[in-house]
Amino acid sequence: MKPNARERLIEGTRQLLWERGYVGTSPTAILARSGVGQGSMYHHFDGKPDLVLAAEQRSAELMQQQIAEAFAVEGTALERITGYLGRERDVLRGCSVGRLTADPEVMADDTLRAPIREAFEVLHEHLRRTIAEGVAAGEFAGDLDVDEIASAIAAVIQGGYALARAAQAVEPFDRAIRGVLSLLRVSAPRAN
Amino acid sequence: MKPNARERLIEGTRQLLWERGYVGTSPTAILARSGVGQGSMYHHFDGKPDLVLAAEQRSAELMQQQIAEAFAVEGTALERITGYLGRERDVLRGCSVGRLTADPEVMADDTLRAPIREAFEVLHEHLRRTIAEGVAAGEFAGDLDVDEIASAIAAVIQGGYALARAAQAVEPFDRAIRGVLSLLRVSAPRAN
Repeated sequence: MKPNARERLIEGTRQLLWERGYVGTSPTAILARSGVGQGSMYHHFDGKPDLVLAAEQRSAELMQQQIAEAFAVEGTALERITGYLGRERDVLRGCSVGRLTADPEVMADDTLRAPIREAFEVLHEHLRRTIAEGVAAGEFAGDLDVDEIASAIAAVIQGGYALARAAQAVEPFDRAIRGVLSLLRVSAPRAN
Repeated sequence: MKPNARERLIEGTRQLLWERGYVGTSPTAILARSGVGQGSMYHHFDGKPDLVLAAEQRSAELMQQQIAEAFAVEGTALERITGYLGRERDVLRGCSVGRLTADPEVMADDTLRAPIREAFEVLHEHLRRTIAEGVAAGEFAGDLDVDEIASAIAAVIQGGYALARAAQAVEPFDRAIRGVLSLLRVSAPRAN
């Protein structure tokens, strides 16, 4: 079944936001990308900000779904974190959620910023809980602050995209991920 | 002495790029921000791309200067890395260089991308050399890959800005920095 107009508008807007940000997501571009008519757009949404919010919420939901799946698997804490960091990503495209932190229009509006903030909070909570489990299991050093390590890992992902895009190569992203994982690994308490 | 028109155009464009990206940096906005006339702009620069390139080069130079200063100080490897990560930053504004990696116009043009790529290469080289010194001095684990750790640290900075902007709070940036520094610290080989 062909997705309905509302779905096509959300997905078209989501892709445009991801590639071009708020200013580049003009109503004209949304209609062209979604293949729906102007009347349909204003039937389903109050206007661009309303549609942008729905598109952001969709990106945030998808990110939260991927997080939930990656952390639900069986395995050690390091295996689950490695699984999430290593999941299939379109690195040079960047993160559909994180990309919007560079967007002045989205950042200046608390309503448009909320889905981004919440998606990062969900990631932080999963990382923090998994790291705490790893510390309890003796996988990681006991004197680490779990919130600090969770923030460092989340930052490596987002910053890895920036380094990769600057180089137009995936390698700096992969290298940063391997780097933080190796630091986590060597933090394991060694037998005396 | 009042900076000359050329300098004011570069600085005005640099600030606009930082805040609003390529599309938001219109010739009209550049003239308003710089306080110079249109004739002066086209006297000094061939057009917007030429002026944007000069502004990017200025941001990249400033970043490279801060890197050189931070890593030139006396101290252990960890102290120098801590010094660079902890230097005064306008966290919620983000990085004038890294911000452009989210910009589709800048990323699509190899000439406009070059200053960004080069500034990150300079940072990578300073981090990599300092980490190698730290490994040699027994400050960090000997089995770490210095390129991976350098990329992880550079990514934490860039990603820390993204987390902070999403939260509109400096704390996630500071936490990520403390996290990666604590991982580096606990990687130190322990006496057997």
